[in-house]
Amino acid sequence: MLKATIEADIFRETIDAVSALVNECRLHVDEKGIRTITVDTSNVAMVSLELSASAFLTFAAEPCEIGLDIEKIRSMMSMIGKTDIVSLELDESGKKLKISFGGYEYSITLLDTKTIRKDPNAPNLNLPATFEVPGVMFNDAIKASSMVSDKISLAVSAETCVFTMNADGDSDRIKRELTGDDVHYLTCADARSLFSLDYLKDMGKSIGRAEKVQIRLGTDHPVQFSFVYAGGKGSVGYLLAPRIEAD
Amino acid sequence: MLKATIEADIFRETIDAVSALVNECRLHVDEKGIRTITVDTSNVAMVSLELSASAFLTFAAEPCEIGLDIEKIRSMMSMIGKTDIVSLELDESGKKLKISFGGYEYSITLLDTKTIRKDPNAPNLNLPATFEVPGVMFNDAIKASSMVSDKISLAVSAETCVFTMNADGDSDRIKRELTGDDVHYLTCADARSLFSLDYLKDMGKSIGRAEKVQIRLGTDHPVQFSFVYAGGKGSVGYLLAPRIEAD
Amino acid sequence: MLKATIEADIFRETIDAVSALVNECRLHVDEKGIRTITVDTSNVAMVSLELSASAFLTFAAEPCEIGLDIEKIRSMMSMIGKTDIVSLELDESGKKLKISFGGYEYSITLLDTKTIRKDPNAPNLNLPATFEVPGVMFNDAIKASSMVSDKISLAVSAETCVFTMNADGDSDRIKRELTGDDVHYLTCADARSLFSLDYLKDMGKSIGRAEKVQIRLGTDHPVQFSFVYAGGKGSVGYLLAPRIEAD
Repeated sequence: MLKATIEADIFRETIDAVSALVNECRLHVDEKGIRTITVDTSNVAMVSLELSASAFLTFAAEPCEIGLDIEKIRSMMSMIGKTDIVSLELDESGKKLKISFGGYEYSITLLDTKTIRKDPNAPNLNLPATFEVPGVMFNDAIKASSMVSDKISLAVSAETCVFTMNADGDSDRIKRELTGDDVHYLTCADARSLFSLDYLKDMGKSIGRAEKVQIRLGTDHPVQFSFVYAGGKGSVGYLLAPRIEAD
Repeated sequence: MLKATIEADIFRETIDAVSALVNECRLHVDEKGIRTITVDTSNVAMVSLELSASAFLTFAAEPCEIGLDIEKIRSMMSMIGKTDIVSLELDESGKKLKISFGGYEYSITLLDTKTIRKDPNAPNLNLPATFEVPGVMFNDAIKASSMVSDKISLAVSAETCVFTMNADGDSDRIKRELTGDDVHYLTCADARSLFSLDYLKDMGKSIGRAEKVQIRLGTDHPVQFSFVYAGGKGSVGYLLAPRIEAD
Repeated sequence: MLKATIEADIFRETIDAVSALVNECRLHVDEKGIRTITVDTSNVAMVSLELSASAFLTFAAEPCEIGLDIEKIRSMMSMIGKTDIVSLELDESGKKLKISFGGYEYSITLLDTKTIRKDPNAPNLNLPATFEVPGVMFNDAIKASSMVSDKISLAVSAETCVFTMNADGDSDRIKRELTGDDVHYLTCADARSLFSLDYLKDMGKSIGRAEKVQIRLGTDHPVQFSFVYAGGKGSVGYLLAPRIEAD
């Protein structure tokens, strides 16, 4: 059972964060709120999202699982006004979700949760460098880098405490250094890994809207991004596997 | 003979209303103004338009027929400034129309009116429900519906006096109900017909600019839309045949 | 050697003016500033550009030649903020140019200047009509004309001192006359030549940003456009060969 109302922009950020990586997901619903954890089809990236019941205007739920076609909801987004209140209601059969807003009633058929792959287990990773940077600075650097290359190295120097994003293309290079007030370290340690810009571009759009993104980085290890939204009542985590360095 | 001047935005709305359905039309000109009536190539939709001589800044005409390539004029629209005055002048041969605005002189070759199909006769229809809704609300619902389906049912309930637009797609559905202040009935009667969204999307753009659109609806009958523009000195009518309901 | 800083918008106008015609160019650098002169691959149009050292915020240079991949720099433009300061620095090998702005460091591999065609000699032309028109009016007329034709005639009448731009398409025609305050003659003489709109559209974008463009026109001769930018510290010249008139 689910019957809830939510502000349009929180609804939108929720959908956007997940749709960065996957087209469908299994939503776990209970009285505490909603959450999902899923990997992309090539097993390279993982997204986890939690949105507390208190982030909703009204929220009544009994534990259930919902199979969401994320793409379908995303295509409806342009209809939803910025200040609309979005109502969500699972129908009695549990097979359809009714989404209402601004005089509209939109009913979508849910996916059979049995057809959606099992929830992945979040791996335990030893990532020595942990720090925060403004989301918009991170996303801008990702956008710029993707103009010269398809991969980027993220690196922290324990000595200088500079966070360096470096994209080396065939003939050109873009380097972005964050230092001073732009980066706040929880633990500063040597770390350097190489990542595919394809995935980072998709994640970057959601990260770019966050005031701060926390980054956990190791050497030739996955990178972890986490940020909050909905006034701290929602949280998103991305995990991205490193690329093998060819050179 | 035709020699007239008109404000750019009235000229634009005139062209847009007709180009929603056809690429060419026969324009009837006389001292009272201009008018056209034409059906689309598949005979499913009809548009009629009248613009009174008083809607023009200056207007001098003798009865004649003009074969207009609507698409050609539409492609020039971006050149015309919002506050421009547009001059129209038929040349002496009657084969070219000179359109001048803002220092430009644009001369287009007219179509031979003999090659344009005969004016259709507006059918006499018995459409029991007649009501008005805001143009923008109608158009927004059309745009939303076309995301889930290619057809939409328009229905009025005599009992509740609710106007319901319902688009049922293969797996999803969008329903929009207009009631209360949003719909004004001249005659409230049971009516329900199914229409192709393809046509309604095109009509919707012009309807969306009208403060009010009058809708006349029957059961498994065509629907009629009519609205005014140019401060009431112009009027547009659309007629759309129903789709056969498969289910 | 080159080490200089420049405001983002002057940098942008410089790149745009040259990229209108060519994808690569040889930049001549010395203590007085930078300059380039180059023809497009089909030898129909020539662009020359000079930007004085005083247009830069800082400028230190020793005479050298730089082979620039203009397209590559153009694709980076969206990253540069409107109020950014752009730093340019040739590396010691002379094979890479470092472009820095807003915390970014962008390094591009330069082209071997030997692979870029020799600088053309600006021809000596006898073009009797010389006059100035607002850049934006010229560009608007070019954009409009390209909707009906792929060629345009530019003409001055010695008798009326009207500057006429006339694009004759297969069935339609656009004529734009500039007269009175819109055109300022240095020498008014009969002149008329026909040009390809393809080239003029590309030039028009840069010309459209100039307050005034000086035009030198002859009969069945090339046309010359010149305008200044960067507060008069930069100048651009375009030369375009005429088309043979078929009719």
